[in-house]
Amino acid sequence: MDSLKIGIAGVGTVGTCVVVKLLGGAVKDTTITRLAARDINKDRGFKMPESQWTQNALDLADEDDVDVLVELIGGADGTALDLVRAALANKKHIVTANKALLAKHGVELAELAEKNNCILKYEAAVAGGIPVIKALSEGLAANNIFRINGILNGTCNFILTEMETKGAGYEETLSIAQELGYAEDDPTFDVEGIDAAQKLSLLSAIAFGQKPNENDVLTRGISDVAAIDFEFAKGFEAVIRLIARAEKKIKSESSSASISGTSGEVVQVVEPCLVRKTSVLSGISGVTNAVQFETDMVDVILQGPGAGGEATASAVLADIADLSQFMKSGMRVTPHVFGRSVSELVASQSETEVMPSQWYIRLNLKDAPGSMAKVTSILAEHDVSIEEAVQRGPQNGEDHRPVVFITHKCEKSAIKNALVALEAIDVIAKDVNYMPVI
Amino acid sequence: MDSLKIGIAGVGTVGTCVVVKLLGGAVKDTTITRLAARDINKDRGFKMPESQWTQNALDLADEDDVDVLVELIGGADGTALDLVRAALANKKHIVTANKALLAKHGVELAELAEKNNCILKYEAAVAGGIPVIKALSEGLAANNIFRINGILNGTCNFILTEMETKGAGYEETLSIAQELGYAEDDPTFDVEGIDAAQKLSLLSAIAFGQKPNENDVLTRGISDVAAIDFEFAKGFEAVIRLIARAEKKIKSESSSASISGTSGEVVQVVEPCLVRKTSVLSGISGVTNAVQFETDMVDVILQGPGAGGEATASAVLADIADLSQFMKSGMRVTPHVFGRSVSELVASQSETEVMPSQWYIRLNLKDAPGSMAKVTSILAEHDVSIEEAVQRGPQNGEDHRPVVFITHKCEKSAIKNALVALEAIDVIAKDVNYMPVI
Repeated sequence: MDSLKIGIAGVGTVGTCVVVKLLGGAVKDTTITRLAARDINKDRGFKMPESQWTQNALDLADEDDVDVLVELIGGADGTALDLVRAALANKKHIVTANKALLAKHGVELAELAEKNNCILKYEAAVAGGIPVIKALSEGLAANNIFRINGILNGTCNFILTEMETKGAGYEETLSIAQELGYAEDDPTFDVEGIDAAQKLSLLSAIAFGQKPNENDVLTRGISDVAAIDFEFAKGFEAVIRLIARAEKKIKSESSSASISGTSGEVVQVVEPCLVRKTSVLSGISGVTNAVQFETDMVDVILQGPGAGGEATASAVLADIADLSQFMKSGMRVTPHVFGRSVSELVASQSETEVMPSQWYIRLNLKDAPGSMAKVTSILAEHDVSIEEAVQRGPQNGEDHRPVVFITHKCEKSAIKNALVALEAIDVIAKDVNYMPVI
Repeated sequence: MDSLKIGIAGVGTVGTCVVVKLLGGAVKDTTITRLAARDINKDRGFKMPESQWTQNALDLADEDDVDVLVELIGGADGTALDLVRAALANKKHIVTANKALLAKHGVELAELAEKNNCILKYEAAVAGGIPVIKALSEGLAANNIFRINGILNGTCNFILTEMETKGAGYEETLSIAQELGYAEDDPTFDVEGIDAAQKLSLLSAIAFGQKPNENDVLTRGISDVAAIDFEFAKGFEAVIRLIARAEKKIKSESSSASISGTSGEVVQVVEPCLVRKTSVLSGISGVTNAVQFETDMVDVILQGPGAGGEATASAVLADIADLSQFMKSGMRVTPHVFGRSVSELVASQSETEVMPSQWYIRLNLKDAPGSMAKVTSILAEHDVSIEEAVQRGPQNGEDHRPVVFITHKCEKSAIKNALVALEAIDVIAKDVNYMPVI
């Protein structure tokens, strides 16, 4: 039996771990034949002959002794994209950890893979070391997926957990996360929910037959979450988490076609949520990730490390092991990148109307007679009905006081319209926040 | 492309769900060709031509139009064993939910599968609808597994959770579980830990390269757990769960061979444990199952429904989907049943010395001067050192009072020897319990 010949592009923390484990025999019947890195002279703690190294990653797409290209360069475009395109065109299989690449160019690359009878695997692109892609696409292969709930960004989850336990504000906690290396100097990609949206778009593609596209995900980051929201959350026996959710929108009963999984009526949202303690997701702390799949037959939850060199390497190596097994079994027909042929994937529709839910609304209410009456009547006018209300005394002698409502189930549009109307009256100060309750 | 031809033996709750889903197109490119059941005239809510039914399950092993035999008869021996043997001999692939069969005859059947180039899959045999076999054998394919912790028996977990929330005794709660259908009339198989031991032996086989054998699992059931243990547990911020644990025993440093995963030095234990609230497993309630894999690269936890028709069917169908994919890809070399060739599996050694841990010991101490001194000196003589002790007043005017110790880390043998010595002195009454703390 021939060994699977592996070329690795990008030998940083993850790549180094992959190389060391492969050299240690972590996956049988594999050989590293090529390595590409900008600095090929750096001491990475392992030795490979100089002839196997190149500074030009694109070389790997042309080498005859590469069966599988492992792309660990990163970035949605540039070298990573050029390399994966060229490698697929040359009938090389791909293993990548690059969520940005797939959330932007996934459809094109899946088409290219199909055309060339290549496998493109990306377990490491979502939830790091947790085998969620495999669990969803193979472990739940026969299930009809109703809903995905995920904590997919460790940076946000760390910040929110810290704010919860320390009672600290957002900016202060972000600085701590940056000092600890959990957040980048420019944290936008993480804290604005973009990273989670990219990952969610890949899960949605598999679960619902959507063309993956991060732009189809309604995304709101965590920067509006304030220390006081955690105080209120505690009173409701809940915590605050950035939740990535995708679900099949059930149309009116006359249209039963909408539950086929390929109707395009899928809603994808990333936003901070009030998570009741009865949900397993409320217990996910720090940089841990978790994904819950709700289906017609089972409801399963996977949790583990969402990032880090070893966790990501674990997923990359599992993909390599799968490829090795496929090579042995003959490789006549390769599995589809997103669980079905690209021609079967449907374009998802950017939805502004998302799934109805209960909502948490925090207002800053002027401490004057009739304020509360004005607010509640505006909410009522917009069909937002109140289940619970909590009002605190004014803080630090301010003339406003925070008030929180938990609404009955309603559409997000009702909440947003009500907030617009509320902001137009004179009893509400700035610093409003709202979150769905799950 | 030919369709995968499926014969199903045993059409009860699980089998019926599998048939209905397959007829509904849950797994592409499959056809049900044969069904075997004792009562073939029963209305099961679906229609199949009479010619496809047989009352003699063994017929399915001989039919040319069966590529995959789905064995849902159950039982370690008898028809299930005869059928799987005959089907493998006739080069048919197997999907089974039968943990008892594999925990007893797994090695023989894996050999037969290898010899005939057949695939034998059993996702449904462990943790029902949670894809733990796939996660372990494929998702963590390149990982070195250090330890498995599992809640693998829903009946026990239901009983323990009920005792915890209701403050009720064991016998009383067992009756409730029986009334609700969560426990059998003869509950031995579940409550004595045998079911969990069978499942653990299969996970251990994959994780550590052991020959699966339920007799290698040190097994103690939940019938000694009393209501008072939950009261004490609460004081220690812990709960009580039946935990199935397997771990690689690290030998002295001179013997580094023991971490190769095939050394035979693996300890497998099923017993009630005091689980601190810091562990995710403490939050697993009711009939839910959960499995934690601790490895060199990641620590992941999967949870979901461990039993039930739909959950089990979900796993059976995932196995069928995998087989369908393998058929398409050429099927030259089939994957091994327990992750490596049977010739590489090592016999595990029944260990009496298990992994050291902290221990919870509950004694019934005579309410007399010097009792405590006698007990603590006997514990000290056996090198059992105490971290915490809690003593309650005598209950219902009895002349004994419960006392609980949490020990420092020590071997189980030390605890057992100390208990023997303690039971020989006159200050201890019957009704002693001990559990590791995790």
